[in-house]
Amino acid sequence: MQARFITVEGVEGAGKSTCIDFIRRVLRARGIDVVATREPGGTPLGEQLRAVLLDHRQDITPDAEALLMFAARAEHVASVIRPALAAGRWVLSDRFTDASYAYQGGGRGIALERIAQLEAWVQGDLRPDLTLLLDIPVELGLTRAGRRSAPDRFEREHAAFFERVRAAYLEQARRHAQRYRVIDAAQPLENVQAHIKRALDEFLQ
Amino acid sequence: MQARFITVEGVEGAGKSTCIDFIRRVLRARGIDVVATREPGGTPLGEQLRAVLLDHRQDITPDAEALLMFAARAEHVASVIRPALAAGRWVLSDRFTDASYAYQGGGRGIALERIAQLEAWVQGDLRPDLTLLLDIPVELGLTRAGRRSAPDRFEREHAAFFERVRAAYLEQARRHAQRYRVIDAAQPLENVQAHIKRALDEFLQ
Repeated sequence: MQARFITVEGVEGAGKSTCIDFIRRVLRARGIDVVATREPGGTPLGEQLRAVLLDHRQDITPDAEALLMFAARAEHVASVIRPALAAGRWVLSDRFTDASYAYQGGGRGIALERIAQLEAWVQGDLRPDLTLLLDIPVELGLTRAGRRSAPDRFEREHAAFFERVRAAYLEQARRHAQRYRVIDAAQPLENVQAHIKRALDEFLQ
Repeated sequence: MQARFITVEGVEGAGKSTCIDFIRRVLRARGIDVVATREPGGTPLGEQLRAVLLDHRQDITPDAEALLMFAARAEHVASVIRPALAAGRWVLSDRFTDASYAYQGGGRGIALERIAQLEAWVQGDLRPDLTLLLDIPVELGLTRAGRRSAPDRFEREHAAFFERVRAAYLEQARRHAQRYRVIDAAQPLENVQAHIKRALDEFLQ
């Protein structure tokens, strides 16, 4: 089977990390070689920019933020994602460009057509083959995320911001229904994982 | 007189810093309030990205480099250049987007149309009113630059790279002849300054 590119998306507290571990186990149990990576990050440059982006002392304009995300992404695509796919390895990324539609588009108000211009500039026609959106009501997600550690710049944004992010994610899922699977992440973990497993089984057929 | 946006461009060792000091003095002597700035840099985010970009230990893909330059530029435009011009202050920038055409375009081989897409994305229709290109043969420029300090990532590139950068600058000057003044920076400093002064006098009329 040809190598595939899978992304996992969702707002803070949706449980992405736990689900990504689960997806890796499911795929590996089927003998699939998976490269797990994340955005922003995934490369030395990306991790450096991740630190700049999440640094809550900085006030960055929405345009600069979007361009930084796509700079990190360009590096990630060129040095991690494309080489892995070319070598027949599957790629599992904790966030990708849909997050720019959600956060910089929905959240910060950049027009979606402008995000699409950067997407085309950076990726050409590379798109995920499957995107799992872990959808969760904003308040529940923020409560869960708040349990962990000091809030970063994104996490301190007000709930209205995250409502716009969630709405933009759901809009992306609607526009790209063929590659999207929306998972209700408010359910108990075992139900979430059962749902993910069904989505993967379906995809693998 | 309406506030104007002036940029100074040129390869390493062309003598930009000295000339910029001179330009400031000439303008201030005419009672013009000038904000002097530079790229990459000019803002806290920009200076942080400048450090990332010039860090010679990093290997960055051309696309990521271009996007980082434009991220820094977006911040620079929004928080320095546009506010200054709106307040009636002139802006004098040590490098601007023509440097992306020269370095990321000519130097690193990104198609000029792709640079133009980012230019439009970031700047809308903002363009410099006057661009002074300090043109110098590559070998002479590198010799002069070498006198200063440890070479950074760009300066260590081979001469062929800088030949492409210089050619791309001259091509930009040809394409935008109306706003460009090409100064022969290989001349003795007093001749260079006399030439700059003539160009400014002409522009100020």
